[in-house]
Amino acid sequence: MRIAIDAMGGDHAPQAIVEGTLQAARAHADVTLVLVGDEEAIKRCMGSERPSNVEIVHTTEVIAADDEPVRSVRRKKDASMVVAARMVKEGQADGFVSAGNTGALMAAGLLVVGRIPSIERPALASIWPTFGGNAMLVLDVGANMDADPVHLFQYGLMANAFSKEVLGLPKPRIGLLNVGAEPGKGDKLRKEAFELLQNGPFHFVGNIEAREAMHDKCDVLVADGFTGNNMLKLIEGFGLGLFDKLKDVFLAGPLTKLAALILKPGLRQFKKTFDYSEYGGAPLLGIDGAVIKAHGSSNARAFEMAIEQARRFIAGRVLEQINQDVQKQ
Amino acid sequence: MRIAIDAMGGDHAPQAIVEGTLQAARAHADVTLVLVGDEEAIKRCMGSERPSNVEIVHTTEVIAADDEPVRSVRRKKDASMVVAARMVKEGQADGFVSAGNTGALMAAGLLVVGRIPSIERPALASIWPTFGGNAMLVLDVGANMDADPVHLFQYGLMANAFSKEVLGLPKPRIGLLNVGAEPGKGDKLRKEAFELLQNGPFHFVGNIEAREAMHDKCDVLVADGFTGNNMLKLIEGFGLGLFDKLKDVFLAGPLTKLAALILKPGLRQFKKTFDYSEYGGAPLLGIDGAVIKAHGSSNARAFEMAIEQARRFIAGRVLEQINQDVQKQ
Repeated sequence: MRIAIDAMGGDHAPQAIVEGTLQAARAHADVTLVLVGDEEAIKRCMGSERPSNVEIVHTTEVIAADDEPVRSVRRKKDASMVVAARMVKEGQADGFVSAGNTGALMAAGLLVVGRIPSIERPALASIWPTFGGNAMLVLDVGANMDADPVHLFQYGLMANAFSKEVLGLPKPRIGLLNVGAEPGKGDKLRKEAFELLQNGPFHFVGNIEAREAMHDKCDVLVADGFTGNNMLKLIEGFGLGLFDKLKDVFLAGPLTKLAALILKPGLRQFKKTFDYSEYGGAPLLGIDGAVIKAHGSSNARAFEMAIEQARRFIAGRVLEQINQDVQKQ
Repeated sequence: MRIAIDAMGGDHAPQAIVEGTLQAARAHADVTLVLVGDEEAIKRCMGSERPSNVEIVHTTEVIAADDEPVRSVRRKKDASMVVAARMVKEGQADGFVSAGNTGALMAAGLLVVGRIPSIERPALASIWPTFGGNAMLVLDVGANMDADPVHLFQYGLMANAFSKEVLGLPKPRIGLLNVGAEPGKGDKLRKEAFELLQNGPFHFVGNIEAREAMHDKCDVLVADGFTGNNMLKLIEGFGLGLFDKLKDVFLAGPLTKLAALILKPGLRQFKKTFDYSEYGGAPLLGIDGAVIKAHGSSNARAFEMAIEQARRFIAGRVLEQINQDVQKQ
């Protein structure tokens, strides 16, 4: 098994990326990890010892966080992310992992690697912590803006295979994000998707309201890309705003500062529950290869977890399962 | 001016409703408030003195919080909410206010009072606190599930008139909820709505991302009913979950309890910023009368604020403004 690693993407690249890759390489001697990026910079981060299952492919370009996705993927032919994607396309790697520009990752997946023929639209997933303690896979969070019912159905199908093989859930509960729990709720898109999902080769648990979704009501939450993307950004904005306001309360005076000090361990534990790095990454599903997006702020540990997702994705033959499940329809 | 009041709707009805109505009646001698509901129950809540501008219309039925909206509005002809709506339809009141079942309120507005002829779909608005300190009017949050571009345009137009006359904003900033700030972002619906909104008779500030929306980037956020409803429920679920988790941190031991005690005033102030009752209610726009939904958990003060919104809605001739603005197109 070979996994291409975009060494230049993410807030802490290449240092955290290279470190995470070395850790993953040591943990799995049977996996070859190919670091794609500026060779000198990678070597500087690597130190003296290089595990024999780590290779380097030198590239000269980088896609920046604020680059326009489609244009940069088309023009920067020697960008680390584009070269990593091309390796998958050409069979030199089974998948690729990147902590870089999310839009560019979607473009590289779709334009360079290409779709699974039986899947109509790719979907970007996101792993959300819930208050129930378990994480939930939400998709699509922005790969496909105009979703048809069959797209939503296929999201559920793909997420089912991923959740089983990569997240280790024997029977993932697939839910449809909707404005009410009863069948028949929602807009035209949801009503038609509900009918399809109900007859899918997976454990469909029906409509799930956003309020309930945060409390461990399903393992997979199926949404169209527009709604999913907005919800993701709303939670980010709301969460950050709340923590900012709490900080003001804590820093109001000497006594409140003392109180904050007492609460610090508990609050840290609480914040950790909502820490993306514990989950590593999330897949771009529907692409003909294992494509994992690591969080932009990934540290070495988070990136190692993202590589582990790619490894399980390939070892668990997720693509084959998706194809088989589509054939069943 | 006459406003019909559904005395039986809401968690604290009829007591809080009657008290809020009495307060509003005392504040505005020129407004007649008609309490619609069980006469005896209303009189019990009222005490000995009744202002001369408060009337009672006796009804025998009530729509419960868990009643199926459309069916209950159609069948319970003598329900307090339905009778209040009928008074508007028949010209005996200029508007009605209810803290009852939201779905039933939308049904009563649409089926009993009826639409403004020039408006294609009604929209339920919701007033959201933001971290910038100002509130934001979000619509639609669930009146219309399948929105066309022209619906979104009309939401912006209606919210503009409401924000000017009722919320007192001279030049409301109208934003379109979207997945990116640049023009051209989003799904087909958003792209087409953007073009319409850009040429509307109001101050359109372009696409607004959900993350930004919470930080005072616009006064009105235009969304389709499916997305708006999901976002509303997500924030409710996320906010409640966070506060629950914080409570666990505070109650962990004697020292943390002491710390929580120190922080209490600050936290209470913070929670107050996010307290719906400060905002009173939100309108169901597009109905041929002033229809205000008060929060279900309204206390007397919150309900008084909701009545005040209806008063300004009528005094500010919001319906006439909406009609004039539509004619301009």
